[in-house]
Amino acid sequence: MTPEELLERSGVTLQIPGPVQGTWARTVRSGSLLFVAGHGPFVSGTIAHPGRLGAELTVDEGRKEAEVTIINILGSLKAELGELSRITRFVRLVVFVNATPDFTEHHQVAFGATDLLVKVFGDAGRAALAEVGAPSLPFNGAVEIEAVVEVR
Amino acid sequence: MTPEELLERSGVTLQIPGPVQGTWARTVRSGSLLFVAGHGPFVSGTIAHPGRLGAELTVDEGRKEAEVTIINILGSLKAELGELSRITRFVRLVVFVNATPDFTEHHQVAFGATDLLVKVFGDAGRAALAEVGAPSLPFNGAVEIEAVVEVR
Amino acid sequence: MTPEELLERSGVTLQIPGPVQGTWARTVRSGSLLFVAGHGPFVSGTIAHPGRLGAELTVDEGRKEAEVTIINILGSLKAELGELSRITRFVRLVVFVNATPDFTEHHQVAFGATDLLVKVFGDAGRAALAEVGAPSLPFNGAVEIEAVVEVR
Repeated sequence: MTPEELLERSGVTLQIPGPVQGTWARTVRSGSLLFVAGHGPFVSGTIAHPGRLGAELTVDEGRKEAEVTIINILGSLKAELGELSRITRFVRLVVFVNATPDFTEHHQVAFGATDLLVKVFGDAGRAALAEVGAPSLPFNGAVEIEAVVEVR
Repeated sequence: MTPEELLERSGVTLQIPGPVQGTWARTVRSGSLLFVAGHGPFVSGTIAHPGRLGAELTVDEGRKEAEVTIINILGSLKAELGELSRITRFVRLVVFVNATPDFTEHHQVAFGATDLLVKVFGDAGRAALAEVGAPSLPFNGAVEIEAVVEVR
Repeated sequence: MTPEELLERSGVTLQIPGPVQGTWARTVRSGSLLFVAGHGPFVSGTIAHPGRLGAELTVDEGRKEAEVTIINILGSLKAELGELSRITRFVRLVVFVNATPDFTEHHQVAFGATDLLVKVFGDAGRAALAEVGAPSLPFNGAVEIEAVVEVR
């Protein structure tokens, strides 16, 4: 099955994003590496569940926001590549978690994104992962995820 | 016109930095990718406008600090490459914004850097952008910017 | 002398890490670049000195935690490469420092990691360095370090 079919089976529909607002790009390719801009947990143009881990949001809610965000990244990758099967490896993933000073479970939040990648791409979905706190993020999103992907 | 001429027209003079203090490098090349260290908004060796977004600094002031910082990065790139026209693409840009927990406009600050890149390099200046909050930065700078650049 | 011998002379013993817990990877190679996941200052599976710079930990203590963390990264690199002499350059290093809003010496903490790299690898140990604050990190570690390494 293709990644797209596996996603559909999990009830995930990819959204193809419109043009960016401003002087940046969602993805930039150099050689076989595709650099993916920081994405947030937007749903229909809005952050559905704003807030910080350790305050307004629970770990489970944060994990869900990480999943929403990686699905947005997959939408940007689909727009760039046409077919997700052109991805040979998720190389690097950084999950910034909007968090209070006493929060310590950033990894549990990040797994909301990485679990989906491995479910859909198998071992090719296992990225070198960094997950860190941020005191605030654009539009008060719960997470922001940046990635490097290897493509054919 | 060369990037250097376009910068001069905008009233920007590049400063060629001296040797680094410590066990690191301003830029490291590997293949056609040039990795650029985190740069801060130093002017003549000092942070002119220290402080956090959401507290001591306004969005407009933060945007100006982002512009100062990307100009410092261009100075490091000039020192490394000789000619900025050797840059074929700004691949990745991360803008860390020194910010309070209630700040939400990190993107507006980052555009102070990205707007200048597109003005000078056109579409080759459009990087995959991530912009995130940091509770504090070295020397209390308002921003720190890290980059990956593709060169010929 | 090999890097391993130089490390032994400095009294450093590398720990080869066990399998990761979860849906990620400690290192991912693409071409000649090896992307290294965010590592923390774990000793025998535990953060020995948790806390933030500017609060529970001094700069000297933070510097030591950065050294412990880069040693953990060298253990992961040893596990991946067999011989550390296969490393041709430390390309990029990001040191996230668990810090309070008034902390300003992130670079001094980061040098705990970079000084060791240059001691062992010489100029090949000089990475493009970014060092930034984080309001919190996984398990309340003092630092988290992510890297890109060029290998033969």
